[in-house]
Amino acid sequence: MGKVICAGLGPGDPDLMSVKSHRAITGARHIAYFRKAGRKGQARTIVEHLLPDTVQEHAMEYPVTTEIHFSDPEYNRLLSDFYDQWANRLEEIARTDDVVVLCEGDPFLYGSFMHLHSRLQARAEVDIIPGITGMSGCWTATDQPITWGDDVLTVAMATLSEDELTERARGTDALVVMKIGRNLPKLRRALRAAGKLNDAWLVERGTMPTQSVQKLTEVSGEVPYFSIVLVHGQGRRP
Amino acid sequence: MGKVICAGLGPGDPDLMSVKSHRAITGARHIAYFRKAGRKGQARTIVEHLLPDTVQEHAMEYPVTTEIHFSDPEYNRLLSDFYDQWANRLEEIARTDDVVVLCEGDPFLYGSFMHLHSRLQARAEVDIIPGITGMSGCWTATDQPITWGDDVLTVAMATLSEDELTERARGTDALVVMKIGRNLPKLRRALRAAGKLNDAWLVERGTMPTQSVQKLTEVSGEVPYFSIVLVHGQGRRP
Ligand SMILES: C[S@@+](CC[C@H](N)C(=O)[O-])C[C@H]1O[C@@H](n2cnc3c(N)ncnc32)[C@H](O)[C@@H]1O
Ligand SMILES: C[S@@+](CC[C@H](N)C(=O)[O-])C[C@H]1O[C@@H](n2cnc3c(N)ncnc32)[C@H](O)[C@@H]1O
Repeated sequence: MGKVICAGLGPGDPDLMSVKSHRAITGARHIAYFRKAGRKGQARTIVEHLLPDTVQEHAMEYPVTTEIHFSDPEYNRLLSDFYDQWANRLEEIARTDDVVVLCEGDPFLYGSFMHLHSRLQARAEVDIIPGITGMSGCWTATDQPITWGDDVLTVAMATLSEDELTERARGTDALVVMKIGRNLPKLRRALRAAGKLNDAWLVERGTMPTQSVQKLTEVSGEVPYFSIVLVHGQGRRP
Repeated sequence: MGKVICAGLGPGDPDLMSVKSHRAITGARHIAYFRKAGRKGQARTIVEHLLPDTVQEHAMEYPVTTEIHFSDPEYNRLLSDFYDQWANRLEEIARTDDVVVLCEGDPFLYGSFMHLHSRLQARAEVDIIPGITGMSGCWTATDQPITWGDDVLTVAMATLSEDELTERARGTDALVVMKIGRNLPKLRRALRAAGKLNDAWLVERGTMPTQSVQKLTEVSGEVPYFSIVLVHGQGRRP
């Protein structure tokens, strides 16, 4: 009997994965990872130099693109079938072998593996290895602490409405916004309305070789998928 | 010329520190760590089996206890002097050698090292190695994801007022509360008022050998310093 081991990979730098994930990956017989069709995938890239020669790879390619919006029932059906199929496949592998599923950051913070985890309940033994989150990698890259004293930290997705983003930005000390992409103009307006645009930072590909850290007001143009916007808390400090 | 390296240790299990922190610690000539006077200290405990025999240890013992409240100016003065002195001492060591400062969880999330980091600006080279946060260790211990889809996550300290805790609990999808201690009765009342008491979990010493995971409604009595209360988000999931 094997098990499904979901290994948190951390924010991008392979040295930032845990000793436990490192051990699971360097000893793996099977690895599985999500990616967009036609791409190598960030999770696979992180482990490039760690995989044993003999490892069997299972690329789980998303069936949908951002062309379909998640409010479309078709999007939900396609994704749901995709997760069903991979849950079946992982259960099958785990009947005889361990399989290590690679997950960027921390698996239980907005991670895709969560959809397999819920489907595998009572069907396979599943171990989760937590990871350093993308946001920790990003605030470390700004070289400024994210929260002090009694600061409240809010983590929100840029997919929320402009009004809700404005409210969230206004009502918190420290702010992290993920899933930026095309939502950047909306997020900018929300931060301006909340009076926080000048305090916001954009970190692209935190801890990866092409990392960039900029004040959000200095950013123009598109941002990559791995982008996080941060506003640091300013709480009590002796 | 040496530098000050702050190594995030992760939530408690030594296998959950990053490969990078592990390497810094196993190769250290000097380590420094905070602790309460008369205690071994959690940071020091995590690295127990990793230190080279020849390492020089610098225990940074807090000068204050919880007997003095942080609103007392005396508390602030004592702490501030303490951080000044240790910033001087670390600067001195870093003139000739590297010194590794041990930090529980992720250093830039409500960490004590932040007070040395700000004092050492322009005086020493300081490297921060991020870590897996205590909260990641704790939600992983509950075996349930903390956030799905567009869920908003709020991280707050139990030291806030009852009203503010109630507001924060009400106005979020997922909730993490740290620094519980004596604030537990107040936090319980706030969660009840927000209609979330029955969904709350208490994780004590997440990922440590004596970890405990309970529904908050089943908890009675005191809780240890390393305790986190969680309410999981219930967002969109295909
Ligand atoms: C589906 S979420 C997964 C989060 C992941 N489980 C974690 O713990 O960081 C994907 C989002 O994470 C953020 N992200 C993750 N790692 C990042 C990095 N190294 N740099 C910038 N953004 C990152 C981006 O905002 C991206 O849209
Ligand atoms: C001063 S904060 C430091 C947080 C740390 N820098 C981090 O990233 O987790 C201390 C609080 O962290 C929480 N904490 C940290 N690690 C924990 C663990 N393993 N289990 C439970 N609580 C933990 C507790 O609520 C404690 O009061």
